[in-house]
Amino acid sequence: MQYKSLSLTDKLALIDEHWSPRVLAEMNDNQFKLVKVLGEFVWHQHDDTDEVFIVLKGSLRIEFRDGSVQIDEGEMYVVPKGVEHKPCAEAEVHMMLVEPRGVVNTGDAEQSTMTARGDVWV
Amino acid sequence: MQYKSLSLTDKLALIDEHWSPRVLAEMNDNQFKLVKVLGEFVWHQHDDTDEVFIVLKGSLRIEFRDGSVQIDEGEMYVVPKGVEHKPCAEAEVHMMLVEPRGVVNTGDAEQSTMTARGDVWV
Repeated sequence: MQYKSLSLTDKLALIDEHWSPRVLAEMNDNQFKLVKVLGEFVWHQHDDTDEVFIVLKGSLRIEFRDGSVQIDEGEMYVVPKGVEHKPCAEAEVHMMLVEPRGVVNTGDAEQSTMTARGDVWV
Repeated sequence: MQYKSLSLTDKLALIDEHWSPRVLAEMNDNQFKLVKVLGEFVWHQHDDTDEVFIVLKGSLRIEFRDGSVQIDEGEMYVVPKGVEHKPCAEAEVHMMLVEPRGVVNTGDAEQSTMTARGDVWV
């Protein structure tokens, strides 16, 4: 039997919306999500979990209250739990997020138009 | 303050050995490891965890008792827990593994020269 791998590029091509993460795979209780982003997100934090950003295309800046990090293509960064952050993409960025199942994209921030429905697969 | 992202390419350049995963980052209790592989690994399984393979360069074949999967550059695959598998790389492959802290690379197989020391960071 020939099992099938998951192509990040092929799956990204199926995503139209910005800031709307789609689940690509699960490892135990964790989800690997693909997302396209453009512009500024909202300030938020995740009180119970770290969050991994892996940039596949473009360059993402994440602002913190005391600084920022620039994540270019082929780079990753782990935002520690409880750290307030705001992702910003001056041009479109394609990336993979890794975090536990059930995490809301806007974290502790008030629900808004930026709040995406969870557990939508691609 | 300028925080620093992790470059997968720069970190891979620091790794010489084959089949010797180095920890790049942690998310909660999970580790993101970089590894270069060449040739055939040993048959093994991880009874308590799924294991994620993300191929960054080259093409990895993972054999199962009932088939196989080919994972090319930019593709990923999740080997479910308890599934016996044997990674094979006809040419050198660079990849990222994601699995919980404490996982032994040779799983349930008898310790051998392929068994790498855990928790070595790059």
